[in-house]
Amino acid sequence: MPIIIQKYGGTSVGTPERILNVAQRVLDTQRAGNSVVCVVSAMSGVTDGLIKLSKQVSQKPSDREMDVLLSTGEQTTIALTAMAINSLGGKAISLTGAQAGILTDGLHTKAKIANISPRQIRKHLEEGFICIVAGFQGQTLQGQITTLGRGGSDLTAIAIAAAVRADNCEIYTDVEGIYTCDPRIVPDARKIDTIAYDELLEMASSGSKVMQSRSVEFAKKFGVPFEVRSSFNTNRGTTVKEETPGLENVVVRGISVERNQAKVTITNVPDRPGAASRIFSTLSDAGVVIDVIVQNVSLSGTTDISFTMNKDELEKMDSVLSTVVREIGAGEMVKKDGIAKLSVVGIGMRSHSGVAAKLFEALGNGGINIQMISTSEIKIAVIIDEDKIAEAANLAHTAFGLAG
Amino acid sequence: MPIIIQKYGGTSVGTPERILNVAQRVLDTQRAGNSVVCVVSAMSGVTDGLIKLSKQVSQKPSDREMDVLLSTGEQTTIALTAMAINSLGGKAISLTGAQAGILTDGLHTKAKIANISPRQIRKHLEEGFICIVAGFQGQTLQGQITTLGRGGSDLTAIAIAAAVRADNCEIYTDVEGIYTCDPRIVPDARKIDTIAYDELLEMASSGSKVMQSRSVEFAKKFGVPFEVRSSFNTNRGTTVKEETPGLENVVVRGISVERNQAKVTITNVPDRPGAASRIFSTLSDAGVVIDVIVQNVSLSGTTDISFTMNKDELEKMDSVLSTVVREIGAGEMVKKDGIAKLSVVGIGMRSHSGVAAKLFEALGNGGINIQMISTSEIKIAVIIDEDKIAEAANLAHTAFGLAG
Repeated sequence: MPIIIQKYGGTSVGTPERILNVAQRVLDTQRAGNSVVCVVSAMSGVTDGLIKLSKQVSQKPSDREMDVLLSTGEQTTIALTAMAINSLGGKAISLTGAQAGILTDGLHTKAKIANISPRQIRKHLEEGFICIVAGFQGQTLQGQITTLGRGGSDLTAIAIAAAVRADNCEIYTDVEGIYTCDPRIVPDARKIDTIAYDELLEMASSGSKVMQSRSVEFAKKFGVPFEVRSSFNTNRGTTVKEETPGLENVVVRGISVERNQAKVTITNVPDRPGAASRIFSTLSDAGVVIDVIVQNVSLSGTTDISFTMNKDELEKMDSVLSTVVREIGAGEMVKKDGIAKLSVVGIGMRSHSGVAAKLFEALGNGGINIQMISTSEIKIAVIIDEDKIAEAANLAHTAFGLAG
Repeated sequence: MPIIIQKYGGTSVGTPERILNVAQRVLDTQRAGNSVVCVVSAMSGVTDGLIKLSKQVSQKPSDREMDVLLSTGEQTTIALTAMAINSLGGKAISLTGAQAGILTDGLHTKAKIANISPRQIRKHLEEGFICIVAGFQGQTLQGQITTLGRGGSDLTAIAIAAAVRADNCEIYTDVEGIYTCDPRIVPDARKIDTIAYDELLEMASSGSKVMQSRSVEFAKKFGVPFEVRSSFNTNRGTTVKEETPGLENVVVRGISVERNQAKVTITNVPDRPGAASRIFSTLSDAGVVIDVIVQNVSLSGTTDISFTMNKDELEKMDSVLSTVVREIGAGEMVKKDGIAKLSVVGIGMRSHSGVAAKLFEALGNGGINIQMISTSEIKIAVIIDEDKIAEAANLAHTAFGLAG
């Protein structure tokens, strides 16, 4: 019998009514002739409520105790979901991360899955049960409760899919799938049927936050195809899988947009070993997440270094970097927000030239000035003024023929 | 180093502020030179909230899933309590029932403790940790989550006290201890310093619901003395322990009162084997909890049988018993509510006569009519009109010299 993994996020199980809705879907999937494992998150709002409680008893709660606390959220959902399925005439059993055999390292609040022993899941499936597994959590060899950090429930689903060699892994969300561009920005954006792991990774790192990169990387590593789809209807979503020759025929898969960016230029950085590294190790130590970095060839013995980051990081950047700029004998630090990033992604780019030229031409025709350019093997990203981003996205979307 | 077990109920940990208060008390106990294990219940209201959620997804949730659901309540409290102690500069670690080594049978929602392996608790105590253990829950050998039913957190505390051979087991409640009578009824009721297990059991079964009988029986079985005291101050409470010669010197330890009782008399029950048994097995099968039973000697070939129960049970009793009354050829069923039970309890009664006489005299002098009488080795109970119960309790309290 085919094994299907279904994962439902916090919004999909946010109320008792929605849990009953999920229960019916899961039951329908089983009745269509499948063995089903259903991974659920905490009901929306529950995790935030628990975090708020923790702040009321402790300024800095230990990671171990946060895991004991937060794991109750998913445990509540598995029990309710199993009850709901049983009340609809099905046969379901709930499993905590530990009971599902999800073994992790001991890095509390951001544990890594070390191993899954799917013995219990297999046994219950063979007995005809639907297994309802708590996402986001696991257990160490020593029996400590751990959580997997952000996006952890997706990771649970994909890891179980790998462990039981599932025939399908369905990630249910509040969107229909992955789009060629954000439909709120580009009205004629189209749902993508199939996308390669690497393309989704580039889209995700460029603002299309349907899935955490970590889960996609895990799926890629273990070769687990999965489908992102909506929990509010039965439409097919977007399948994410290994790249195939067929997938490469499309040059550009999609366009992603990231607003709220800021750019920093440090002028006259001495062109000697260690100067640039000093800047970026300082930022890394302080936990400032930076994105695009541009440094031009040095002709005069000094160079200008620019980089971008989320606008919210600007203040922290400033506080750790101003001393460093003086110490390495650079010029000044010029900050600018109100910018955005547009990325064009597609594995077909590898074998097709002219993508950059076509993008620059489309933006140029629209009178949009490109402030920075960054490229990877399957992505071209440009930094432009934020108030031009919608226009730019529509121009590029049309230029690459992405509309339906 | 002495080992102290402290148990705090739902009211004592009902808010973040109260959890911080408990944390401080626990920490003070450790700093006074003790190893401390703290057993906590779910925050007040949490369990009811979870039950309400379950009703919204299922009319009749399975016991197994109820346990998965309800056990999150205590798990939340242990994490918060450990965080609170750590934030006050202490060193605490939370343990779920499973982590604390509490092994139960598989009777979900009312599991019995089968064994406790206190290895983890001992190890953490030796490392200087305060152990915060989730009350009310355990795990089967197969790794299923179980709960212990009503009063389960007291049971957890007493079982751990037995397993680690604790020097003291303190049950914190919202009352000061066990009283000679309910102070809301008898204003000069006095807190009892020491009481025997059997006395508390008789008081508990007669309406003094400070502790569930089950926990007291468990403590008696394993010889674990414990103290019932208030979590809102540092006054000594009531110590409950084996009876000693000293304890027997007091004839009457206390008086307990149970309101909201109802009485049923079945007239002209044929005086042949099986008639009475048919009545009470029917009630037992239907889960009707009955209390006092009185049957007089039969002189005429038939007899009247009377019994009491909580008023709320009356309707269920009626629905299952009316047919039986006809089938066994008895007369009629006479129901009466508006009655109450007063019990006088003391192990000293065994060796002292005249207790019943003194009680009947006191009530008689007050013009209070006794409708039924029931006695055990250490208890005399009378059924009277509910509107006379306060007067009766005060008369008896004075007659036996229980005031301070």
